[in-house]
Amino acid sequence: MSVFVGVDVGGSKVLAAVVSQTGEVVRSVLARTPGRLVDASVVEDVMTDAVLSVADGETIKAIGVAAAGFVDAPGERVVFAPHLPWRGEDVRRRLAERWGTPVVLDNDANCTAVAEAAYGAADGDGTGVVVTMGTGIGGAVLVDGVVLHGRNGMAGEFGHMQVVPDGQPCECGRRGCWEQYASGNALVRYARAQIGLEPSVLAEACGGDPDRLTGPMVTDAAVDGDLVARQAFGSVGHWLGVGLANLVAALDPHRIVVGGGVSAAGDRLLDPARHELERSVVAVGDRVVPPVLAARLGPEAGVVGAAELARRSL
Amino acid sequence: MSVFVGVDVGGSKVLAAVVSQTGEVVRSVLARTPGRLVDASVVEDVMTDAVLSVADGETIKAIGVAAAGFVDAPGERVVFAPHLPWRGEDVRRRLAERWGTPVVLDNDANCTAVAEAAYGAADGDGTGVVVTMGTGIGGAVLVDGVVLHGRNGMAGEFGHMQVVPDGQPCECGRRGCWEQYASGNALVRYARAQIGLEPSVLAEACGGDPDRLTGPMVTDAAVDGDLVARQAFGSVGHWLGVGLANLVAALDPHRIVVGGGVSAAGDRLLDPARHELERSVVAVGDRVVPPVLAARLGPEAGVVGAAELARRSL
Repeated sequence: MSVFVGVDVGGSKVLAAVVSQTGEVVRSVLARTPGRLVDASVVEDVMTDAVLSVADGETIKAIGVAAAGFVDAPGERVVFAPHLPWRGEDVRRRLAERWGTPVVLDNDANCTAVAEAAYGAADGDGTGVVVTMGTGIGGAVLVDGVVLHGRNGMAGEFGHMQVVPDGQPCECGRRGCWEQYASGNALVRYARAQIGLEPSVLAEACGGDPDRLTGPMVTDAAVDGDLVARQAFGSVGHWLGVGLANLVAALDPHRIVVGGGVSAAGDRLLDPARHELERSVVAVGDRVVPPVLAARLGPEAGVVGAAELARRSL
Repeated sequence: MSVFVGVDVGGSKVLAAVVSQTGEVVRSVLARTPGRLVDASVVEDVMTDAVLSVADGETIKAIGVAAAGFVDAPGERVVFAPHLPWRGEDVRRRLAERWGTPVVLDNDANCTAVAEAAYGAADGDGTGVVVTMGTGIGGAVLVDGVVLHGRNGMAGEFGHMQVVPDGQPCECGRRGCWEQYASGNALVRYARAQIGLEPSVLAEACGGDPDRLTGPMVTDAAVDGDLVARQAFGSVGHWLGVGLANLVAALDPHRIVVGGGVSAAGDRLLDPARHELERSVVAVGDRVVPPVLAARLGPEAGVVGAAELARRSL
């Protein structure tokens, strides 16, 4: 037997998986990412261990790597990765030489989009928009199932579209970026600001210290009916819809798929987004408004998409 | 001899042209559009006269029609056209039957993009963004020279991306649309508000009545060094750059081409836009910022693109 492997390298976790021809994870191995302050070779060691372990002695035909960072358009270099040590390095060639197999490299949101297009909610011809909502917002544009990379490999950086002039400051150095209003960080910020002003189980959940509040705490509280948590999802969902309306004006996609950690909240996030999209999109009476679908592949989408790219490369 | 003809139907003018294999207008005929309150057949009569006149007895191989309105994705129907009488009508088939030739139909901004891609400033592979700035903002996304139509044929409606929450009211019924800040209308609105507040030749140009001020008056005054007119271009150019930065975040295009009436101002419009784009785009240190180029084909771009689509359809 010979297999295809996907490796998803994020800021905190390295996930390696053997992925079947039909997009199923046959088996996987999870490791901790050493962080961005180590030498790049340390991260590559962890990836290598994970690949060898998950392959379990079987021949590897090709490996796809999904990296949490900017990958250049040809898929050769990691230009910049905020949570990883790579800085403009020729990661694809180096790993291919080290592993002795063909290696394909792409951005993690692009790999997620490839997986959702091949096996998930983004299937079908035409234009698809995939938005990944985690700490910030990433994403991809699909044209007939293929990811649009753009000049620098940076297409789909939707989170840094400006939605509020002189708005909330963003980690990118600018202000008013979409991800400051629609993301896991925005969710937590909204809830923190309300703790103490309105009764909420979140005060207890964070042990009285709003700085210790996390996204999953807000999600859990919303499930339990907490008003502040639900308002936080209402706000983030509203802003999700505002930005989606802009993407619909620009691209008129056939479908929108929302993935990433925050999307685990499902319709609690997506319903206010759908409502705002209907209200905000231009020419609503003369068009079919695209469906806003929940991603189907969850946290494994990155490895599935990376393995799919590896398979297609042969 | 047999020829390809392009017809551009706008709110005020019908332009028909015989276009050569190399994208040159061999000869053209201009007529007035009867307006939107007449029967659709009246507009089609004017188009027919123009086509017959410009063909001048030569056999027509195929005709391309560029329409100022929403054209559906298959290029069959004009869904809605604010300045023309068509409402969801099957314009392509009707004209093909009437003219006895193959007819291709597309939106005017899409035709402009096709022309600029084939013979103008938008040539080359990869992703191109074409922005047409006239009364409002239209545009198109090109992928390897082909226009992306989207689900409803409405991709490229950049003018209705929201750039200011609860901003200026827009003719579309919403608020804060990009074209309220970066368009011919925005240029005139800015200048009108300043007349009387600051010394300006525009007070004379409009005969003391700011309501009579037009875009070309502002353009002429800017050429003559008028401060208010130059500030108006500075403002519109600034907002052009803000919106372009959003399109760059989403699409990372290889090039941006700006056409339409307002773009006749050239660098007076484009320099402030380039400046703001550099300032506003995400990850400016890690990317090549796309060039912002002036469209090259001017007011004939629509007929050239329409004829090009007709040529390609055979």
